[in-house]
Amino acid sequence: MSRFLNSKYCELEAYTPGEQPTDMKYIKLNTNESPYPPSQSVLDAVNSEAVSILNLYSDPTCKSLKAAIADLFSKRPENVFVSNGSDDILNFSFMAFCESAKRKVRFPEISYGFYSVYAELHGVEYTAVPLNDDFSINVKDYCHNDATVVIANPNAPTGLALMLDEVETIVKANPDQLVLIDEAYVDFGGESACGLTEKYDNLLVVGTFSKSRSLAGARLGYAIANKDIIADLEKIKYSTNPYNINRLTLLAGEAAVRDNKYYMDNCKRIIETREYTQKELVRLGFYVTDSKANFIFAKSDDIGGEELYTKLRARGILVRHFTKEKIKDFNRITVGTREQMQALLDAIREILEEKKNENS
Amino acid sequence: MSRFLNSKYCELEAYTPGEQPTDMKYIKLNTNESPYPPSQSVLDAVNSEAVSILNLYSDPTCKSLKAAIADLFSKRPENVFVSNGSDDILNFSFMAFCESAKRKVRFPEISYGFYSVYAELHGVEYTAVPLNDDFSINVKDYCHNDATVVIANPNAPTGLALMLDEVETIVKANPDQLVLIDEAYVDFGGESACGLTEKYDNLLVVGTFSKSRSLAGARLGYAIANKDIIADLEKIKYSTNPYNINRLTLLAGEAAVRDNKYYMDNCKRIIETREYTQKELVRLGFYVTDSKANFIFAKSDDIGGEELYTKLRARGILVRHFTKEKIKDFNRITVGTREQMQALLDAIREILEEKKNENS
Repeated sequence: MSRFLNSKYCELEAYTPGEQPTDMKYIKLNTNESPYPPSQSVLDAVNSEAVSILNLYSDPTCKSLKAAIADLFSKRPENVFVSNGSDDILNFSFMAFCESAKRKVRFPEISYGFYSVYAELHGVEYTAVPLNDDFSINVKDYCHNDATVVIANPNAPTGLALMLDEVETIVKANPDQLVLIDEAYVDFGGESACGLTEKYDNLLVVGTFSKSRSLAGARLGYAIANKDIIADLEKIKYSTNPYNINRLTLLAGEAAVRDNKYYMDNCKRIIETREYTQKELVRLGFYVTDSKANFIFAKSDDIGGEELYTKLRARGILVRHFTKEKIKDFNRITVGTREQMQALLDAIREILEEKKNENS
Repeated sequence: MSRFLNSKYCELEAYTPGEQPTDMKYIKLNTNESPYPPSQSVLDAVNSEAVSILNLYSDPTCKSLKAAIADLFSKRPENVFVSNGSDDILNFSFMAFCESAKRKVRFPEISYGFYSVYAELHGVEYTAVPLNDDFSINVKDYCHNDATVVIANPNAPTGLALMLDEVETIVKANPDQLVLIDEAYVDFGGESACGLTEKYDNLLVVGTFSKSRSLAGARLGYAIANKDIIADLEKIKYSTNPYNINRLTLLAGEAAVRDNKYYMDNCKRIIETREYTQKELVRLGFYVTDSKANFIFAKSDDIGGEELYTKLRARGILVRHFTKEKIKDFNRITVGTREQMQALLDAIREILEEKKNENS
C-alpha cells in the first residue's frame, strides 16, 4: 500500500478470482467457463480486416450490438445496456443505485462473492441475508424492505434457482426499491425475468456473455431494464470510460447474439452433462444441490471439501473450493465436456478408494 | 434519470467523447487516432486460434503483457499496471489517490476534459489552475501544494509540453503528494518521465496504446510507478473488474510493444506531417501552438473556431471544437496521413476564399 491511498480503501478486501495456475496443464472446472468454443460466426466476424482497423476507436454507443440484443429479448435499444463484462455492470449498479446508509443493499449471505466487495468499495451498508438450511432463498426475506435487492438467479455457488413468480413477488413487494437480478447462469435451466422489465420500472436484469455464450475471454455483459435505469447506467459509463468495449468484442458479441441456436444447443449439452455427472456423484455417495447452472455444488461425507479440492488439483483437475464455514464441505465444479467430467469422476473414484484403503 | 439514482450523481455531467457521425464518410481528424493500422505482428497475434479460445477467461494478472511493457521501459513487472484504456487508469487514480476534501486535486484549467468529470464523480474537491496567456503551464502553480497533481504532458488540446526537468521540479516539490503525469501524447515529441519513477515514489506516469500504438479500438492503457502505487491500482482493479482486459487486447498489446520500431517510425511520419501542416496553416494566416502531440491547435483571425469546424464538417472533414470561452477560437486537428492533411488544407483554402468573397 502506498502512503497516498484513499483511507476508505485501506481495509478493503478485493475479490479473489478463481486460480489460473500455469505449472501444468489442468482440466479447468473452477471458473464456470463454457467448454465449447465461440461459434463460427464469431470467428468470421473477428477477422483480420477488423483487426486492421483497431487504430480507430470503437463505437461508444454500441449501436449495432444493442440492436442485436434488443432483437433477441424483444426489447428496444433504449432498454439495453452493454459494458465490459457483467462485473462492470454490477459495479456501476452498486454505484448508481445504492447510497451509503440512505439506500442500503441486501443480498444472500452465500452468493457471488463480489457483491460484498462492491458494497464495501462504494461505502454502502449491506445486509448479507442467511439462506434457508437447504441453501434456498427465502422470498419473504426480500419483500417490503428499505434496501436495494441483489439476487443471483440461479444463485452461485449453490446453483439453486427461484421460479419466475417468486422473482415477481420480490419485485412487486419493493415498488420503491431497485431489484437487480443477476442472470449470469440463467441459460442452463433458470427462468429469465427479462420479460418483467416492461411491467416493473424497478427491475434491472443483468446478464453475461461469459457463460452460455462462450465469450468469457472477450468481456461482455448486458443489462435489460426500463429506459431511465439504462440512462443512469450510461451516465456512469460516460463518466468513467465511454469506450469501454473494444471493437473486436462488439463484433464477437453481435455475431454470438445473431447465432443464438448454436449457443442454446450447447446449453442443452451442458445440462445433459450436468444431470449425468450429478447422478454419478450421487452414486459415489455425494450430496448435490438441484443446480440450474453450468456448475455442480457437491459434498461427500467420505471426504472434506478442501481435501477433495487439493487431491483433484494434484491430479490436474481444478475445481473451486470456498472457505466460508457454511459451505466449506462443498466444491463448486464447472460442467465441462462429457470427457472432462468422465476424467473428474474417475479421479474422484480413485481418491475415495485411496482414502478407504488408508482408513482400513 | 430513474428515481433510484444515487443523489450524488444526479447533477454529474458526463464526458462528451468526440462525435462519430455515420451519415456520410468523413476524414476523421477529431479524436486523435493514429492514421496508421496496427503492425503486422498484431494481425498475426490476433488470429483465429486466439478467437477460438475466447470461451476461456483472460489472465487477470496480465503477466505476459506486463513483462513486455516492463522490458520496453526497463522496469520490473511490479512497476507496471495495465487496464482497459488509460481512461480506466485515470478513473482508478482519482478513486485511489484523491479523497474528498482531505486530499484535493489540481490540474490545468484547459486540459483533458475528463479530469473534472472524475473529480466530480468521486466527490473530490478540485482546483482547475489557469494556464499562462500563451497556454503554457506555470510550473510554480504545481509546486508545494497540498493536493494531488494531474498534468497531461504534452497537454491537450494545446499540444504544449513541459520539459523533463520541469516535470522533475514539480515531482520534487511535492514529496507528500502524488503527481500523475498523463503521457497519452508523449511519443510525438515530448519527453517521458518514466525514467524518474525509480527516483521518486510519488510519481505515477500513465500512458495509452490508443495514439502512437494504433490500438484505440482495442482499449489498452498502462501506468509506470513505484510498486506500492501499482499495488494500490491493482487493488482497485481487483475490487471492480479483475478480468477487465480481454484476451485479444492482451495479445495485440504485447505484439505492439514487441514491434516498437514500426510504431516509432509512424510517430516520426506523424511529426513530419504535423510540421508540414502547421507551416501551411501559418501561411494561410493561422496561429498554431508549438504542438508536441499528434494534433494541431490552430486559430485564424479570418474565421471563428466554430464556423471553421462547421464548414469543414459540411465538407466531410471532422475536427474537434471546444466551446470553452478561452479556447473557442481554436480547433484541435488530429494529424492524419499526408493525403488527409492535404485535403484539410485544400478545404480550408476554399472556405477562406469563399469567406473573402462573401465579405467583399
